[in-house]
Amino acid sequence: MIDIDINKIKFDEKGLVPVITQSYYTGKVLMQAYANKEAIEKTIETGYATYFSRSRNKLWIKGETSGNKQKIVKIKIDCDEDSILYLVKDYGVACHTGEESCFYRDIDFKEDQKPDAYEIFHKLYEKIES
Amino acid sequence: MIDIDINKIKFDEKGLVPVITQSYYTGKVLMQAYANKEAIEKTIETGYATYFSRSRNKLWIKGETSGNKQKIVKIKIDCDEDSILYLVKDYGVACHTGEESCFYRDIDFKEDQKPDAYEIFHKLYEKIES
Repeated sequence: MIDIDINKIKFDEKGLVPVITQSYYTGKVLMQAYANKEAIEKTIETGYATYFSRSRNKLWIKGETSGNKQKIVKIKIDCDEDSILYLVKDYGVACHTGEESCFYRDIDFKEDQKPDAYEIFHKLYEKIES
Repeated sequence: MIDIDINKIKFDEKGLVPVITQSYYTGKVLMQAYANKEAIEKTIETGYATYFSRSRNKLWIKGETSGNKQKIVKIKIDCDEDSILYLVKDYGVACHTGEESCFYRDIDFKEDQKPDAYEIFHKLYEKIES
């Protein structure tokens, strides 16, 4: 795994970068929030997920009041360095609604049940590989 | 699972919303991009992940040129309706670098190897539940 420096991160005009938080235990995407440079430095320093709250306009240590902390396993950065992923050991729920993940609702969408050509090839490939 | 209407989505001042794309097959977070309302409508209509390219300032059907399409399984929305998750059946790689996921690099961070109180309680809880 290639390591990259925090100074490479491209923050937006507000000094923020989107952060995706994924559970190390379940692989679930738990939440998506934002961080400024200070929040990421604090995350590295403490080993616990820290964000920047846009509504409260200040640093936000996840779980500071709720106790539902997120212990960092890895901090990943995307190819164009403008998106961050916190892989975390999560304790308790991530969402203020009491749900495990903030993404607990679906946009109304019905998947086409008929497999398409891509899917057939994918299954064939898996069969060959196994 | 609760279904929610597309009109509930809170787009930012540029008419965009961050989209996290996760593989249905591996659970990996593949990429993070943006969508406008049209991109989400197109995604629902076609069943394939569509984004809005900020650099090219136009609709971006993932895999249109590379062939690495993303077939939608679910479209999820977060608690405050300002972040979207595409759960996809991915064919080929997601990243233009040739990597499976755009998040192929780590920010320099060494996890504390010593388990903390939270982790001990979590393991104990798992033991009790099993």
